[in-house]
Amino acid sequence: MDWKPNRHAVISIHRQITDRIKALIERGDWSTDMRIPPQRKLAEEFGVNRSTIQTALDELKADGYLEGRVGSGIYVTGNAWNLLMDQARPNWQRHIETGVHKPNYHTIQLINDYEQKDDIIRLGTGELSPDLLPARELEESLRSITLDARAIGYSSPQGSIKLREALSARLEKRGITVSSDNILIVSGALQALQLIAVGLLEEGATVFQEGPSYLNSVHPFQSAGMRMQAVNRAETLSSTIRSLKGQSLFYCVPTLNNPTGYSWTVEEKKSFYTLCRDARIPIIEDDVYQELQFGEGSPPLKAMDEAGHVLYLGSVSKTLSPGLRIGWIVAPTPVIKRLADIKMQTDYGSSAFSQEIVAHWMMSGRYDRHVERLRTRLQERAERMEKILLRQYQDIATWNRPSGGFYIWIRFHAPIVNKALFLKALQRKVLLNPGYIYDPGDAHHIRLSFAYASLDEMEIGLHQLRKIIEERRDAP
Amino acid sequence: MDWKPNRHAVISIHRQITDRIKALIERGDWSTDMRIPPQRKLAEEFGVNRSTIQTALDELKADGYLEGRVGSGIYVTGNAWNLLMDQARPNWQRHIETGVHKPNYHTIQLINDYEQKDDIIRLGTGELSPDLLPARELEESLRSITLDARAIGYSSPQGSIKLREALSARLEKRGITVSSDNILIVSGALQALQLIAVGLLEEGATVFQEGPSYLNSVHPFQSAGMRMQAVNRAETLSSTIRSLKGQSLFYCVPTLNNPTGYSWTVEEKKSFYTLCRDARIPIIEDDVYQELQFGEGSPPLKAMDEAGHVLYLGSVSKTLSPGLRIGWIVAPTPVIKRLADIKMQTDYGSSAFSQEIVAHWMMSGRYDRHVERLRTRLQERAERMEKILLRQYQDIATWNRPSGGFYIWIRFHAPIVNKALFLKALQRKVLLNPGYIYDPGDAHHIRLSFAYASLDEMEIGLHQLRKIIEERRDAP
Ligand SMILES: Cc1ncc(COP(=O)(O)O)c(C=O)c1O
Ligand SMILES: Cc1ncc(COP(=O)(O)O)c(C=O)c1O
Repeated sequence: MDWKPNRHAVISIHRQITDRIKALIERGDWSTDMRIPPQRKLAEEFGVNRSTIQTALDELKADGYLEGRVGSGIYVTGNAWNLLMDQARPNWQRHIETGVHKPNYHTIQLINDYEQKDDIIRLGTGELSPDLLPARELEESLRSITLDARAIGYSSPQGSIKLREALSARLEKRGITVSSDNILIVSGALQALQLIAVGLLEEGATVFQEGPSYLNSVHPFQSAGMRMQAVNRAETLSSTIRSLKGQSLFYCVPTLNNPTGYSWTVEEKKSFYTLCRDARIPIIEDDVYQELQFGEGSPPLKAMDEAGHVLYLGSVSKTLSPGLRIGWIVAPTPVIKRLADIKMQTDYGSSAFSQEIVAHWMMSGRYDRHVERLRTRLQERAERMEKILLRQYQDIATWNRPSGGFYIWIRFHAPIVNKALFLKALQRKVLLNPGYIYDPGDAHHIRLSFAYASLDEMEIGLHQLRKIIEERRDAP
Repeated sequence: MDWKPNRHAVISIHRQITDRIKALIERGDWSTDMRIPPQRKLAEEFGVNRSTIQTALDELKADGYLEGRVGSGIYVTGNAWNLLMDQARPNWQRHIETGVHKPNYHTIQLINDYEQKDDIIRLGTGELSPDLLPARELEESLRSITLDARAIGYSSPQGSIKLREALSARLEKRGITVSSDNILIVSGALQALQLIAVGLLEEGATVFQEGPSYLNSVHPFQSAGMRMQAVNRAETLSSTIRSLKGQSLFYCVPTLNNPTGYSWTVEEKKSFYTLCRDARIPIIEDDVYQELQFGEGSPPLKAMDEAGHVLYLGSVSKTLSPGLRIGWIVAPTPVIKRLADIKMQTDYGSSAFSQEIVAHWMMSGRYDRHVERLRTRLQERAERMEKILLRQYQDIATWNRPSGGFYIWIRFHAPIVNKALFLKALQRKVLLNPGYIYDPGDAHHIRLSFAYASLDEMEIGLHQLRKIIEERRDAP
């Protein structure tokens, strides 16, 4: 062993040592049941003092890499969990690699990691910025909430009746007439997709979606063994249908799509609905951005659904707080019953406290007032971003003026959006959502979000990006 | 059609009509795309007025059984969801029927249904009664909670660091030394089992458990394709292990087991731990009742675990409120990382509000004070129940004196605990958890819970049960 920790590295000495020892074990250099060298010896070899070694070894014990045996030193464990995990290709990944959609996992991983850091300008993040989240008002609203003992026990399968009734009244305003029996409360729209994949579809069923579409919608279906197929709604759907065998359904975000921000027109919605209904292809309408349309807006597909053909999803994540983890599914009662059953078997229902809070906000009018304000502020942010784009990007890119939501799907004339660009921007502390994570073949688009970065950050971040693009063009 | 609704039935007329029409459709008497008889005609046939028919048809439309076509009446839909559901043996049920453990689904269904009703005496319910739940204090505590915007956004994968640190300090007191990195916050212990089944095990792996054991632990594993095997810990485990092929793990509730209420002794825990460790069979220790031991209590297996061999589960469902949906997994960091990953893909983390509340209760000392009081009150209830048993059941049954938790696992000398007894009790408005739902061959046990029914209800319920047993003995 001639390895020594690097005293000038960003990673702490102690962390370098644990990493080193893990590597020795994982590569098999230190094998199961081997007695490791005494601490004194390790301290000498690594050129550190014994207390550092001690801390590192304690941590490795807690993590199951090493174990102490009374009176005889420290041994490498053949830790059963590590063995399990080595063997098990976990079944939630079983189908992923065979899917048509192969997102660039490394970029997505980097995005997830860097979203945890503080000094990064996040130009693509699909969340409300901290200053758009009503933390103060939420805190205050907690003071007005009354709990009775029934409400804090195990929940009824479909979720709080108070919340479902409040939702039924809200949905009515959007043209959707359903009773509380047609509603299931879930822990966010993402869980809804999970429940549908597991409870309503057979392995091998086909799930259509528009390309590009919401990234996290792919995983629940693929991991339950569904085949994802990207289609171009009107144009190709009808021909695709004809060649179709077996079960299928269509997942779509017709209003303010993620990542494009586009909404279908009322006519497009109508003809799509008719096409699917006639072909007996059920529709999942993911409508989490519905209330964030800047103008009048267009109604959901579900509002034109007389035949119980559309399964409708909503959530408060984009309007009130993602931390609440509250969403809903609207569907015919037999579907709701089955999904409620699976939900109970999965987690026994969503947080009763989150449900109380959302019900309180909806019933007291707080929610409406907040969403109203939020829309105005998002619109201001959208305008600000557009202004910057008009000033700095008009010569190299095009985009649609946003009609709501969070996103501008900017298209560069040249195919410059690749991993090198992404990494270069990251070096300058600007985090992007490049188009190729939605469609591996796309080198033209970036998803910009005007919901997360502060106005100053937008200015700085977009300026940096423009500079980077220039530099790369000038480089040989 | 000569069917007419029954005006004297408990079910409403309008409900009888919707049920009737659903049945006609489901049996195929009314087939897909058939135009149904005009409302006037239906009203005549069923002998009700048109508005009743109208309401029923509207509901059937909303549920996707019927659809209106403009200008031409109402038709039977070949509702795509119904078709899907008919075809799809949902994959969460795929493996259930092949499992060794075949609970009596009908009885379990009845228990779930009757637990929703108000005028039933629930002698077996595994929940805190409304008057043991600290609704008032929870409500009050909401006033002291402060939220910052970070805390109400999308959560970090492992859950609130504040809560994880509070838990790490609590666990230390129980002899479990782990850092916040070894903890994953989940939506209740049930979700923990779900994540483990999906993320750590291959299809076909063997999950051992003691018989009888927690009912809902079976489903997550079976639906992910694991084989469940009931073993008698010490006696048969070692011989079973020898014949074992492929992956396996042991799921157990060593402290205050559900349904028996038994705890293993410290010696039993030690020898079990050693056996499993040496055989490299990882252990899941479900310890949701740990803090409800009446006396000193015995420490968790996890406290003797130097090798990261035990995956440890806890929850506030049995102490504070099941509606919070907060539990935790303690494990080596590589395991935590993988499970956190799956958790994020499943529902993006647990309610941030629930996490704040639990962290607040633990850090402020509220939690300790409450659990202390709760233990006393559960002990009083246990003594009260035992007193009734001593008075009325000593001649026909035996039981162990409870050492904590919720349950008394009463054993009748004669094999009298069957479905007939269960139904008879239900008729008298007494709901039981008979032993045969835990083990189909068991005709001797009932799980009594002293946590749910009020003291008066206990008295009345147990008196009724005794009477029923007598009557049945006297009957020919
Ligand atoms: C289209 C779409 N659906 C669903 C979600 C997730 O919503 P939730 O937080 O309710 O799970 C998002 C969030 O990015 C989204 O963009
Ligand atoms: C042994 C055991 N584990 C887990 C649970 C479920 O706990 P949670 O509400 O945290 O999902 C129960 C509840 O009955 C139980 O008895």
